[in-house]
Amino acid sequence: MTGITREKCAKLDAADPLAPFRDEFVLPEGVVYLDGNSLGALPKATPGRVADMVEREWGRDLVRSWNTAGWWDKPRTLGAKLAPLVGAAPHEVVVGDGTSANLFKALVAALRLNPGRRVVLGETGNFPTDLYVTQGAVELMGAAERRVDPDGPELAAALGAGDVAVVLLSHVDYRTGALRDMPAVTRMAHDSGALVVWDLCHSVGALPIELSACGVDFAVGCTYKYLNAGPGTPAFGYVAERHHATARQPLSGWHGHIRPFDFTGDYEPAVSASRFLSGSQPLIADAALEASLDLFARVDMRRVREKSLAMTEMFIDLVEPVGLRLVTPREPERRGSQVALAHPDPEAGYPIVQALITRGVIGDFRAPDVLRFGFTPLYLRYVDVFDAATALVEVLDTDEWRDPRFAERAQVT
Amino acid sequence: MTGITREKCAKLDAADPLAPFRDEFVLPEGVVYLDGNSLGALPKATPGRVADMVEREWGRDLVRSWNTAGWWDKPRTLGAKLAPLVGAAPHEVVVGDGTSANLFKALVAALRLNPGRRVVLGETGNFPTDLYVTQGAVELMGAAERRVDPDGPELAAALGAGDVAVVLLSHVDYRTGALRDMPAVTRMAHDSGALVVWDLCHSVGALPIELSACGVDFAVGCTYKYLNAGPGTPAFGYVAERHHATARQPLSGWHGHIRPFDFTGDYEPAVSASRFLSGSQPLIADAALEASLDLFARVDMRRVREKSLAMTEMFIDLVEPVGLRLVTPREPERRGSQVALAHPDPEAGYPIVQALITRGVIGDFRAPDVLRFGFTPLYLRYVDVFDAATALVEVLDTDEWRDPRFAERAQVT
Repeated sequence: MTGITREKCAKLDAADPLAPFRDEFVLPEGVVYLDGNSLGALPKATPGRVADMVEREWGRDLVRSWNTAGWWDKPRTLGAKLAPLVGAAPHEVVVGDGTSANLFKALVAALRLNPGRRVVLGETGNFPTDLYVTQGAVELMGAAERRVDPDGPELAAALGAGDVAVVLLSHVDYRTGALRDMPAVTRMAHDSGALVVWDLCHSVGALPIELSACGVDFAVGCTYKYLNAGPGTPAFGYVAERHHATARQPLSGWHGHIRPFDFTGDYEPAVSASRFLSGSQPLIADAALEASLDLFARVDMRRVREKSLAMTEMFIDLVEPVGLRLVTPREPERRGSQVALAHPDPEAGYPIVQALITRGVIGDFRAPDVLRFGFTPLYLRYVDVFDAATALVEVLDTDEWRDPRFAERAQVT
Repeated sequence: MTGITREKCAKLDAADPLAPFRDEFVLPEGVVYLDGNSLGALPKATPGRVADMVEREWGRDLVRSWNTAGWWDKPRTLGAKLAPLVGAAPHEVVVGDGTSANLFKALVAALRLNPGRRVVLGETGNFPTDLYVTQGAVELMGAAERRVDPDGPELAAALGAGDVAVVLLSHVDYRTGALRDMPAVTRMAHDSGALVVWDLCHSVGALPIELSACGVDFAVGCTYKYLNAGPGTPAFGYVAERHHATARQPLSGWHGHIRPFDFTGDYEPAVSASRFLSGSQPLIADAALEASLDLFARVDMRRVREKSLAMTEMFIDLVEPVGLRLVTPREPERRGSQVALAHPDPEAGYPIVQALITRGVIGDFRAPDVLRFGFTPLYLRYVDVFDAATALVEVLDTDEWRDPRFAERAQVT
């Protein structure tokens, strides 16, 4: 056994400098929420911020709020608030549109910046939208797609072919939780003559990110996982300053224009990350993001990373005896903020997750066989980790998961 | 004089079958809001609907709401609720992304469906984002753009050239308020071998629209003007059923996949308007749209059109004596739901609008010289039309607008 007890966990919680943040979130009674890597929990400040946006900014001040409430500049002011979380300058990040649209913009812009090469190098197991959007972009651009496993030796070989225009990788793999070495991969890509686009969906808000220091060209990410901005709230795009005069994306709406209120007939992009903007943004959802980012302004991301690794390490240790295969890398420096496990029987994954949900431990299942558990240091306690691991061990030890009701599939995941 | 009095207006209000809807909106005291063509007013049901979404669906039920609250299907269920307002079948409309992204998707799809032709025919005075996104799309597609004044004889001549792949027009011009003849223009385009994309931003919710009956191929529109869904709330896309198996748009995110939860590596689009979806949508903003659409389900759009024309007609009659040039067509069948006026001195437009705002009459100014006044039959009374016209006449008759303070430009319009 591991020697970890619930009492020891309670002591760790008492000494945890991040512990007070838990009180800033709404967490349903009796629930251990290990799905913040899919949808973050609701900050207590958010409902009030959203209501103020709806009732005062929109309802009372109406169209005047484009000026008085800063609506017009919201994609930039939110981008500036988000920038420290990704190691970027304030003018290198804009908030707007979804992850898919931002990926499309970044891929087309990168292909245009590297016109002598026509290959987008992606990863075999990337999140489907990354794969699908790449297919959409390369078809339009007369380019080609190649996929490798970035956690193996294939990446260097693929780059060595000398035809890769741009590399698109997820910083943390959505299924395995593997964390990629952003400095090394970015350097290797640049050395081979390729640009890089990083998808930060599963890392932003979970660990420190240093886009500028790594020399990254473009990055995208969503705001509703570890950033807790609410379901489907707009994504963000990062454009390195050195590309601000030259990166051209094709969704050239008026919010990306250098002088939008001239209402001229010809598109001339702004010389900043604003050129990645297109049209008006859903400002009610943006209000929820603002509440989240204001909370993160008080968070030390190094402490988040320390606690995240301590929690995932503890969870791995506690569940090791039940014999599930650890899909997530064992080395801390190669691990994001989630633990993925697989049962020898691929059909077992779904009912195990359902049995846990019935016990109040919410994780999720990803085809073909992965049980995912996300660890969010801002609102999880060490005792939660202990309780969740205990529940998982019991569900397996007692065969509780074999109850036929847990095999019934819901409409969507 | 016109013979219209405030008393007569009050009688019209008393007999107005749409009058009860005014009580369903938040309208600030002392304001006559004539900018609903830019940002619609707040429905009273919206704050509660948004709060329920945030606090119950997100905060309490968390990730389970993807199933239990219908989040996954929201782009389709909202599309089905919107469909009657544009004369479409429920499965021909999806809600998601912004107007610019939807325009881009429709233009690329239309160009692909008409591969023997390479010209997008647009309008000289269209809203800038329509022009800019067209530029972005034709550059990627190796196509060309041509612009005409669609209210003159040039349109037929341009179509006659035989190289037009797709016509993109605004149903109602954002500046002049001119309403285009959708049946005739669509027929003329089709007869010439072109497809059509209609931008409904300034007509949806203001007048009846019959996309299916007109044989329209694609349409896009925003939800935050006459539909009152809140600032920047997602737009919608219409894809005629006959194109559901063949229209290919390049923002191919996983929400457009035929079997998204298979998480397969290859994109295969859904056979419905869902193929125009990309990624997750801002569901907090979608909740505001749902409140609006539920209100519109009780609205007879023919009555909206009747009242809209009566109000714009009355406003034109009342302000005629002050000598502003009527930019909006005088014929009711060629008019949307706004009245645009111009002063002989182009510098006068901005301060006149500011002087009116100071009096509580909110319209707006659009470069180079247009004063815009939008009329929203659901929450405006005939007495409001009278009061606004009276204020405009006084501001001009007394030279009130010449006060230097009204010439100071705000940051944005």
